[in-house]
Formats: sequence, C-alpha cells, structure tokens
Amino acid sequence: VARSVRERVPPLLTDLYQFTMAYAYWRTGRHQEPAVFELFFRDNPFGGGFSLFAGLHDCLLFLRTFRFTDEDVEFLRSVLPPATDPAFFQFLRGLDCSGVTLRSVPEGSVVFARVPLMEVSGPLAVVQLLETSLLCLVNYASLVCSNAGRFRLAAGPRRKLLEMGLRRAQGPDGGLTASRYTHVGGFDLTSNVQAGFLYGIPVAGTMAHSYVTSFSSLEEVRPQTLVARNGDPDPVDVISLTKGWLRRVCELLGGEPGKISEGELAAFLSYAIAYPQNFLPVIDSYSVGRSGLLNFCAVALALCELDYRPVGVRLDSGDLCRQSVDVRRVFRLCSEQRCVSLRFSLMLCAMFLQENEIDVVGVGTHLVTCTRQPSLGCVYKLVEVRGRPRMKISEDPEKSTVPGRKAVYRLLDAEGHPFLDLVCLAVESPPEAGVSLSCYPLMCDDSRLSVIPAQVTCLRQEVFTKGRVSRIRRPAAGFQSCDCYIWLIM
Amino acid sequence: VARSVRERVPPLLTDLYQFTMAYAYWRTGRHQEPAVFELFFRDNPFGGGFSLFAGLHDCLLFLRTFRFTDEDVEFLRSVLPPATDPAFFQFLRGLDCSGVTLRSVPEGSVVFARVPLMEVSGPLAVVQLLETSLLCLVNYASLVCSNAGRFRLAAGPRRKLLEMGLRRAQGPDGGLTASRYTHVGGFDLTSNVQAGFLYGIPVAGTMAHSYVTSFSSLEEVRPQTLVARNGDPDPVDVISLTKGWLRRVCELLGGEPGKISEGELAAFLSYAIAYPQNFLPVIDSYSVGRSGLLNFCAVALALCELDYRPVGVRLDSGDLCRQSVDVRRVFRLCSEQRCVSLRFSLMLCAMFLQENEIDVVGVGTHLVTCTRQPSLGCVYKLVEVRGRPRMKISEDPEKSTVPGRKAVYRLLDAEGHPFLDLVCLAVESPPEAGVSLSCYPLMCDDSRLSVIPAQVTCLRQEVFTKGRVSRIRRPAAGFQSCDCYIWLIM
Repeated sequence: VARSVRERVPPLLTDLYQFTMAYAYWRTGRHQEPAVFELFFRDNPFGGGFSLFAGLHDCLLFLRTFRFTDEDVEFLRSVLPPATDPAFFQFLRGLDCSGVTLRSVPEGSVVFARVPLMEVSGPLAVVQLLETSLLCLVNYASLVCSNAGRFRLAAGPRRKLLEMGLRRAQGPDGGLTASRYTHVGGFDLTSNVQAGFLYGIPVAGTMAHSYVTSFSSLEEVRPQTLVARNGDPDPVDVISLTKGWLRRVCELLGGEPGKISEGELAAFLSYAIAYPQNFLPVIDSYSVGRSGLLNFCAVALALCELDYRPVGVRLDSGDLCRQSVDVRRVFRLCSEQRCVSLRFSLMLCAMFLQENEIDVVGVGTHLVTCTRQPSLGCVYKLVEVRGRPRMKISEDPEKSTVPGRKAVYRLLDAEGHPFLDLVCLAVESPPEAGVSLSCYPLMCDDSRLSVIPAQVTCLRQEVFTKGRVSRIRRPAAGFQSCDCYIWLIM
Repeated sequence: VARSVRERVPPLLTDLYQFTMAYAYWRTGRHQEPAVFELFFRDNPFGGGFSLFAGLHDCLLFLRTFRFTDEDVEFLRSVLPPATDPAFFQFLRGLDCSGVTLRSVPEGSVVFARVPLMEVSGPLAVVQLLETSLLCLVNYASLVCSNAGRFRLAAGPRRKLLEMGLRRAQGPDGGLTASRYTHVGGFDLTSNVQAGFLYGIPVAGTMAHSYVTSFSSLEEVRPQTLVARNGDPDPVDVISLTKGWLRRVCELLGGEPGKISEGELAAFLSYAIAYPQNFLPVIDSYSVGRSGLLNFCAVALALCELDYRPVGVRLDSGDLCRQSVDVRRVFRLCSEQRCVSLRFSLMLCAMFLQENEIDVVGVGTHLVTCTRQPSLGCVYKLVEVRGRPRMKISEDPEKSTVPGRKAVYRLLDAEGHPFLDLVCLAVESPPEAGVSLSCYPLMCDDSRLSVIPAQVTCLRQEVFTKGRVSRIRRPAAGFQSCDCYIWLIM
C-alpha cells in the first residue's frame, strides 16, 4: 500500500514555490524552527450549513511515505536556479516526516467553515513542503463527501444511492476518489469496479442503451429456453412464454403491438436468460410507454411464471418522477394479474424533487463534479513560528487569518447532541461540563453568548507523530446530526 | 510506462454494467460480432463555439495494456451473480485489444459538438468493455484543455499563462491531468513539479504568504550580505543598502515608514539574498500600497545597484487590474530614479477584463475545476453491428443517435483555413477539392447549403490497430483557428 501511495502522491506532487521557499528558509537557517500550520475552509460548500471532512486516510499514508529519491532531487536541481547551494539538495535527500505531528478531525466528521480541521506542526521547511499535497488530498475528498451527504439527506434513509460518475471525473484517480468518499458520505453503491476491488464498496450495474440497441430481432436470442427456479428440469421456451405475456400486457395496458420494438424485447430476453435473478433493464432506449415498459412487463411476468423475481427497471431520460409513478401503477396492475406481490425498484439517473416512486437513485456527473461548487477551497495557513503567533492581513478582509495555535472543542447538550463547536487558543483553559461559558458567535456582531455544555469533547485528535500513525479513535457520532452551529471564542 | 498506465487505468476501472453486458453478449454468442462505437459530445463546452480534443495519448496506452489478471478475474467472479457460467471468466482472462481499431481526431485538435471524434471498432463485447475508461480519459482532458484554450484566447498571445490548480483538483491524478492538458491547450507553465518531472512542462513559482508572515524582524535575515553580480568580490551589506533605498522610496511615493512591515521586508530580503536573480515576491500579505510595494521597490533597487535584475511582483487579492496599473506606475517612477529601464512582470492570480498591466497570469481553481461547466459529457454510442446501422431513440429528442459508420472531413478554403467539418456516412463518396457539394447545417432547418472546398482533409486517422499504436501524423494546424462551423450531411 505504502509503495502505491508513494507512486500516487510522490513528494514532487506539489507546487514549485514550496521548494523555492524551503531553500530560502534553509539559506537563512530557519528551516528547523518549530512552526504550526492550520488547514481550514472559509465557507461551507454548496451554500449549505456544514461540510463533511474526508481525505485523512490518504494524508496519513502520504506523511508516512514522504521522502525524496535521488531521481526527485536531481529533477529539483534541474528546475531550481543554478545558483542554489548544492548542500540544500543533500538536506532534501535526508528529509522525512519524523518531526511532524498532525492533529486532525476524524474522517467523515461533520465540520464547519473557519474551524481549523488539521493542525500540522514540525520543522518550518518540512511542514511548508507538505502544503499542496495535503490540500490536494483533503479538498476534493471533503467536497465530494459533503456533496454525497447532501444527496443522502435529500434522498432520505430508505432509498439506495448509487455513485456512477467515473466517466465524468477528473481522470482515473478523480473517479476512484469520488467512489471512495461518496461512500463515506452516505452512498450505498458504486458502478466503479476498481473502487469495489480496492475499497470493498458494493458495486452495481446492469445494461447500457447500446446493449438494447445492439439487438434487432428475436432470432438473436440464444439460448431460447430457461429452466424454472423451482427445480423442474425441463427447459421452458421463454420466447413463446414471453410472447404470450406480451399479448396480455398489451390488452391490459392498451399497448399497440406494432409499435413495440422487437430488438428491445430480444435484448431484455437475452439478458433475462443470462441473469434470470438479476433482471433490471433500461427501458427508455426507444419509448418507455409504447415499448420499453410493455416489453419489461412481458419478460418480468414470464420470469415470475418460472419462479424468478425481476428486480426492477432503470429510467434514464424524460420526466423521471412522473414516469416512476406511471411505471409503479403498471407494476401494480401486472402484479394483480399474477396475484403475486412484485416489489420492483426503480433505478434512476437524476435527482427527484416531486412525487415519485423511486427506490434507487444513480448519480453521476453532478455528484462527482460537484457542479454547484466544484472546489472546496481549503487553505493552509501559518499560525505560529517559534512559539510566536503569525497572522496574514489581506486586502480582502475575510482572507485575514486568526493567529496562534488553537484548540477546538465540540460541546454536547444533555441528550448527547452536539450544539456548538468552540475554537479558542490552545493556551486557554478548556471548557468544562456543567460550567457556564461565554463565547462570541463567528462572523456575527459582538453579541456575547453564554452556554452550559453537558459534555465537552476535543474535536481533533493526534493522528500522526514521530513518523508514525497514532491509534485513531472512531468518531463518537457519525454523519447524522447537522443541527449544530459554529461559534468562535478568542 | 506501460506498467504505470496499467496501474493507473486497470481494466477494472470501469462500470460494472460493462461486465454484465459482456456476459449477456457472451451467453447469447454475440460477443465476437463486429461492432462500431462513436465517441462524441453533444454541446460545445462553456457555451462556446468549439472544444479542444485531448486524452488520446492516454487512450492509446490504455488499449495497449488492456488485459485482465487472475486477480481481476477472481474479483469479477465475486461480484457477478453466482449463476454466471465459469467459462465466461476464462474468456475474460484471454481478452485483449488485438481485434480493436481506433480512428481518432489528433490530440489537441479544434473540434465541434456532435462530430464523432473517435471511432472504436472490434468485437462487440470488447469494444463495449472499453467505454467507461475511454470516456474517463477523454472527457476531463478535453474539457480542461478547452478551458485552457479559452484562457489563452482571452489573454492574447503575449502574456504568459501559469497553471496552478493542483490543490483544488480531483486528487493527485486530476491535478496531473490538468497540468498536462492545460499545457496542450495553450498554458506556458505549471506550478506542479511532478508534471514537470513526468511531462517536461516548464515549472514556475516563488513564495506563499506563509513565507512572508513567518518573518517578524530584520534580525532573522541571514546572511546579511550579497556579492554583486558584476564580479566585485567584496560582500555588500544589503540590509543597510535596502534601508537607504526604502527611505528614498518612501519620499518618492509618499509612504509612511511607521506603516511598513519589517517582517515583510525581512522576508523579501532573505528571498532576494537566496535568489538574487529570481526576485518575485508576493506583495499583498499586509498592504500592497502601504507596505508590500514599498518593500519590493527598496529590495529591487538594492538588487539593481548590485547589478541583479528583479523579475516582478505577485498580486493575489483585491482589485488586481487596478493594482497592476498602480504598480506599473510605481515601477516607472523607480526606474526613472535609477535611470535604468526595469521591465517587471506582474504575476496575478485571476483573470482580467479591464485595463491592466499584467504579464503573467496564474490560474488555479477556475482552470482545473472548469467552474462554469465541470464536465464535458462525451458519450460512446453504438452505431453499427454486423454491418447494420444501430440507433437509439430517446424521450429526450437530442439524445437520439445518428446511426451508421461515418466519415468526417475538414474542408479548407483557398487560404488553407478550415471552414466546415463534414460528417457523412462512410459508404458515401468523399468530397473533392474544387467540386461543389451540398450539405445540411447541423441543428438548423432544412436549408441546404452549397460549398466548394479548396482542400479536403480527413479529420480522423487510424491510430491503433491489431494491438499496436499506428504512426500518428502531426495535426496540420494547431490551435489557432476557431472560426469554422460544423455542418452535417446525411
């Protein structure tokens, strides 16, 4: 694992200015000074009230394997100015993260804007060098995890959510990161087989339109028989069986046999014969109402007669919510015909806002690209050098930083629900359970607020020190409670 | 290289339904039927008039290394339904792309919506399996390349463009893909060191705000001397020299010495001593007008006195265009003082729309995330099986596909400028130079149009066949001419 991370996130995967700064620090003899950086974002993504934090696991692997090879150093020698002192490259060759300590919010936590999520401390030159890679590993992972969490909130706890964005992601690794962290954010399934292979995420998928359109007649269906699930050894001619059901379905639903695509029926039948227990076709390759739904019902009812249980249909275009209601109505009609209760699921490729009968939602582009806000904008800011607080003052007031090393506490009420995240200086005494404390809400007026926490937890834990990953405690509560607010005490 | 591509884009990096379809094809005996897929996008990105095509190089490496390992096949066995015939896994184990032919538009070409950019032909099951991976490799590469091309058009040919989006990209590989294909799209430089290492793209960068804010006093500057570039061996006390210049700069520009940050001056001086020939500081850590610009001028004039030539300044926040004009005015004043002509460059982190004096533009988030449209939406559609055209009809009319294998010609006028891309069926006779032809503009009314091309070129070339990459001709014209329109003949 370590080797593959080294290949995926080599220490050269960073901005050049990290090296020019490292040299200037080294040249002035300040490279070993103890420094503290904080990683945070300035605004909650998607105009929402929270974010999920993710990417920690990758950051830890990166820190563990951070080391320059001879080849890396030779390349740096070729791109830094010729006047660079050769002894600096010796220094780089010997660098690792044995002097670095990382304190972090746990993977998958609900977090808020302007709270320092990670604190990276260690020798100035080293912790500066880590900036871009850590941001790269946290930014997108947290963004896509938060996006997934929002889909989960919208979909409710009952529906299954399927991530299917690989083809629209930023390259292979963007796709894998999306699959991995949307799973952390509440998605059940992914279409990405490699993500299943690497991370154990359940995979799902059935057929594309090309499969349906590749068939043109029932003669292409081979074999044409299926053995019933109940154990009867005689193969049944499913072509005839399905044709019979198709006639009855057309009568029942008022379908016109002349408008039904024979190629689509052949595609459905072939798939059903290959996977009689996993029949879930895409029914909008031609026309849902005039062809796809009728063909589906005919094949599904034939499968039922052979004691198999069809899984559902996939809809891909048009008014998905309305179609889902129509399709469910047809399912009910058909199941009355058979006197069995069919529980179909409808798998759709877009989000729903109105009345619908959708059981599984597949989301691709909007999930992985985070269309509404395609970057989280985490930053990495110096807050302390040699024990002295550091601050940046900007022409854009909100880009000014809050100096000094912080502590972050999450305060819980009597029911154990978090209600406030408290940021204060590390040197200040921590809040105590049952004791009233005063604080200032972040980005509000000067109004002071008094609260009495029933319980106080440290939001961040030490997760890496002296070159090793520390034992990570599981977060107390998963992604469920988003009704806490953030306040800042200074 | 092949091994690392195999690791980056393994054949499992695809949607599960490719395998469920492959099994259904195999089961019905259709897996070897010759099939043709087309890859295209439906709308030009960013509401613009064109796109750049990119990602071909990665696609070719993917096709060359496409092969399932025992481990891959065992994983597939674990996720496909238990009833799957074991002989199918034997079949997968033996698959490769020796039967696949790829015809493609050259890397970096200007292309238009609905023109088939790639044609993938070969055994039905194999070319279906390639879908997701090819889309993943082309979609983002083309999108970010097109975005870069738009920045290049806006910036004009003179300004340098620097890509600096690694920290906001979709993970490590998203960042590398961005660096690589924005370079194809017209960017000169990248901040991404690994992209320089892997692809030879020139790298650039100087310092972050953290470097500036890490300094608090001139005592931190070490060494405090610099040897003049003209060969004089006596080290010069640059602290005193710079202090002298700072006084004169304050007089000249009306600066208040009490408001100037000593830490910022120390940071600039340290950097200048480390890199006297590469002095380009970020000047907005505190206040451009009251501190950063004055400190810069003082250090720059001290460097000039020692015969070094400062490179410029970096601005990061506030009204960048206005600041660039102010800064340039100050540069002119200072250079009159010295009676030398300083040619500073201004390196900025946002795009400009008004009067400005910007020489280098660094673009990060908006470039790599393609904020305005974060996905290109290339699709991969079946157009022919066993020589018979295939078509999908959709509830969304614009999602219907155009059946049959196509030929794509780019028609040039007498000056050698492309003026029309012609899509016709492969079986139709090609257009001829000097001969009038009739065609129908795409997505317009039925209005017929007659044109006489001075020259006719095939837009796509065979780039892969029989398991090998064919010799690729260089594109005749690079990214320069976007004033052609697309028409469709059927």
